[in-house]
Amino acid sequence: MIQNLTQLYHEQLRDIYSAENQLIESLPKIVGIADNERLRDAVSKHLDETLAQRERLDRIFTKHGIQCVGEECQAMRGLIKEANSHIEKTEPGPLRDAVIIASANRIEHYEIAAYGVARAFAECLDLDEDAELLDESIAEEGAADRKLTEIATGSLFHDGLNEKAAG
Amino acid sequence: MIQNLTQLYHEQLRDIYSAENQLIESLPKIVGIADNERLRDAVSKHLDETLAQRERLDRIFTKHGIQCVGEECQAMRGLIKEANSHIEKTEPGPLRDAVIIASANRIEHYEIAAYGVARAFAECLDLDEDAELLDESIAEEGAADRKLTEIATGSLFHDGLNEKAAG
Repeated sequence: MIQNLTQLYHEQLRDIYSAENQLIESLPKIVGIADNERLRDAVSKHLDETLAQRERLDRIFTKHGIQCVGEECQAMRGLIKEANSHIEKTEPGPLRDAVIIASANRIEHYEIAAYGVARAFAECLDLDEDAELLDESIAEEGAADRKLTEIATGSLFHDGLNEKAAG
Repeated sequence: MIQNLTQLYHEQLRDIYSAENQLIESLPKIVGIADNERLRDAVSKHLDETLAQRERLDRIFTKHGIQCVGEECQAMRGLIKEANSHIEKTEPGPLRDAVIIASANRIEHYEIAAYGVARAFAECLDLDEDAELLDESIAEEGAADRKLTEIATGSLFHDGLNEKAAG
């Protein structure tokens, strides 16, 4: 049982750690199947950011002597399962890229919420250094989300997807 | 297989419809176990909003003659499973309320992303009326998310959770 906010904070961090690990496993496959070059670059860049975000969590775990394993993020498991099942229903091209972005937007928003909660707990516990590290990851997730939306509404919708939809 | 953006848009709507139905099943339990009165009221109000959001989706389905069933939102399934497993690890009180808000923030963000994608598809397909209906739901989800965060950082953190954490 969780007895206090410190334990709850640690559990939240483990949940995010599991989510990031699941993403690190899944993103290379997405880079391989995305058709649009800007999308491939954006996902590839976000894989690097995700590795840096895991590294930040490692620093927090080490500092407080927290076990980093033990929690499996079931929400991220569901998000990735859903992404894969939607991707399998499309052929490579702008439509599949739109599905990739639709799934990635959901994943980014999940992470923004999860990091936001952890940061609020860190602040409540007066862990200012942790809060700053978590803030860096929140900013990256937000930027990645906006970048993906911009690729969807820019390149994809205007270059290929409209014709595809009309056809 | 999904052949065009219209089919993809319909699939996204069915995914959100399934997510809303899962929430409509789960929220009454949350109202029953939340300790903080403002949290109970906020969740209860959001249950009403969720019913209105499903009603908006029904209007879109009817207008286009779309089947509303067939898609099970696996991401929402994972989100709810995770919420329940975290809730079970806490006793009723401010700590459990913090867990409820942590889970609800994730769920709201998932929905904001999902509705945002559907609205972008609606706009791309020149379905202005659909886009407006989806916008109403996005605004409600955003307001619910902010309300929950405000309850967490206001009432919970300052009234009970700090002492609990220190104890």
